[in-house]
Amino acid sequence: MKLSTLRDGTRDGRLLVVRRDGHAGTPAPDAWPTMQRALDHWDEAEPVLRALADELDRGAIEGIPVDPARLAGPLPRAFEWVDGSAFLNHVILVRKARGAEPPPTLETDPLVYQGGSGDLLGPRDPIVLHDPAWGLDFESEVAVVLGDVPVGARAADAAAHVRLLLLANDVTLRNLVPTELAKSFGFFQSKPATAFSPFAITPDELGDAWRGGRAHVRVRSTYNGQVVGDCDAGPEMHFSFFDLIQHIAKTRRFAAGTILGSGTVSNADRARGISCLAERRMIETIEGGAPVTPFMKIGDTIEIEARTPRGDSPFGVIAQRVVGPDQPSGDVPR
Amino acid sequence: MKLSTLRDGTRDGRLLVVRRDGHAGTPAPDAWPTMQRALDHWDEAEPVLRALADELDRGAIEGIPVDPARLAGPLPRAFEWVDGSAFLNHVILVRKARGAEPPPTLETDPLVYQGGSGDLLGPRDPIVLHDPAWGLDFESEVAVVLGDVPVGARAADAAAHVRLLLLANDVTLRNLVPTELAKSFGFFQSKPATAFSPFAITPDELGDAWRGGRAHVRVRSTYNGQVVGDCDAGPEMHFSFFDLIQHIAKTRRFAAGTILGSGTVSNADRARGISCLAERRMIETIEGGAPVTPFMKIGDTIEIEARTPRGDSPFGVIAQRVVGPDQPSGDVPR
Repeated sequence: MKLSTLRDGTRDGRLLVVRRDGHAGTPAPDAWPTMQRALDHWDEAEPVLRALADELDRGAIEGIPVDPARLAGPLPRAFEWVDGSAFLNHVILVRKARGAEPPPTLETDPLVYQGGSGDLLGPRDPIVLHDPAWGLDFESEVAVVLGDVPVGARAADAAAHVRLLLLANDVTLRNLVPTELAKSFGFFQSKPATAFSPFAITPDELGDAWRGGRAHVRVRSTYNGQVVGDCDAGPEMHFSFFDLIQHIAKTRRFAAGTILGSGTVSNADRARGISCLAERRMIETIEGGAPVTPFMKIGDTIEIEARTPRGDSPFGVIAQRVVGPDQPSGDVPR
Repeated sequence: MKLSTLRDGTRDGRLLVVRRDGHAGTPAPDAWPTMQRALDHWDEAEPVLRALADELDRGAIEGIPVDPARLAGPLPRAFEWVDGSAFLNHVILVRKARGAEPPPTLETDPLVYQGGSGDLLGPRDPIVLHDPAWGLDFESEVAVVLGDVPVGARAADAAAHVRLLLLANDVTLRNLVPTELAKSFGFFQSKPATAFSPFAITPDELGDAWRGGRAHVRVRSTYNGQVVGDCDAGPEMHFSFFDLIQHIAKTRRFAAGTILGSGTVSNADRARGISCLAERRMIETIEGGAPVTPFMKIGDTIEIEARTPRGDSPFGVIAQRVVGPDQPSGDVPR
């Protein structure tokens, strides 16, 4: 089942059930007006929404055209956004880039940070850059939406807590990171609003590509029209989503609608490219002594899309343009 | 105006308008069934709720008795919980306690962390301690609930963004902090669910005690029946709530319903006592070479209450008992 949220002037938007091809959809019944409401009562909502999805896929109902420019993220605001950093290649490269050692518990203790979740961007929303000196970067990620997770949840039981999968652009202001981390309270100003893909899908939509708490898809990042990364989100995700769920639930529970990210998708094979500019800058530093690629500037575009082994694009495309604070926003041309 | 949230079996509870003495209240009209809904449409909701509050205070309506044991926190789940650490005496003492230096920007750059907000505790909810080795501590704080805050909001304009004031117990697992901070991604497992006071009040309820973005009230912490702290939340709050708003809004906007905390209320005058056990343990270390006071254990109680200069208790009392994971919860006897 594929779900989406249509902007309708309200804070939470209108839940849409979307045809598998992503081109048509239909508003969910009034009992489930929003994604959060459906997640709050998933056992009741899911069969109703699945029946509608089935009708759309069979052609029994035609639906309305889905315009990605009118979509919010699947959750325009969420009660929690927790982001892991489960691709160790990324952790090692980015820490090298800021002259820091990877933590000694790199392979045994997941890195996660608590992100801001009150304002989440839609797939075509511009990224407003208020100061180019902040060092704007994208981070292409896979994420899951959780149901209610009890404290002490175990990885072995965590599959039942994963409701939906989606993509994220965990926008980062690289030049604000070092001073924030030096204060030891984590990221805050360095993590502005995160953007999400047009569609969130139930795990079964991925078939065998969803296994072991990992999405075995390729995540392609296209920066200013050039493919800069086509990374495998599966095998090198050192901590699976199930591992991350066990980690975050050690001391507290999570409410339905929590979004949990993988961290930047990153492969050790450099031929796969990169899912954030910080990695490319570090590789340039290793190979040539200094970074060459600048961070993002006004007018830049970033597109993030995943492909299944069958070649499907289940989440649709995140396609954002960087704009100045006074510039009109606009869609990324496709 | 004094507001509260009654547990009614739903995730967000039912918004109550409460009489100034805190003993009686009446459900808000159906257009504003929840605190979040009222905050989402504050300009419309506020006059309606104020009219009801006025009727309660005048005795024009009797209302129903308010039982704090049936109250959730004012927001049982919130879209963001951001906690500052604006009392420098606390920062200095707690960092000393873990052998860390205060950051060089201590007096110019506020410390804030992003907390989990999907599961917030009510004023009488037990604190479940799953492992005594985690080092359970309370932290008595003042907090504000924000309206929509635009990116780039300035401290000078921030008063307009403060909708409500309340108290918080920012529960902390001290022994999990050092290894988490060593990973540099901030607190996560070391900050389980935070508890909030029965009542949230509009700033005008404090009269002159709300000035300059600070609540000039005494915050009293009573641990196992003994008053351990009676700290002034006003003058020594180095960064005001207005300063904190400017800090957090530098790179992103905030949605209505964000809760922003002061950090542990702490005074340099030791006669005022402490608002968390970590401070007492540090003082013991300074004075006697080693901490004597253990962290909280099963059966312990903590009560947090504020008094205005007039002697009022505007927020009601947070009164929590520490229980084991298999123990029945129970109210703190008053």
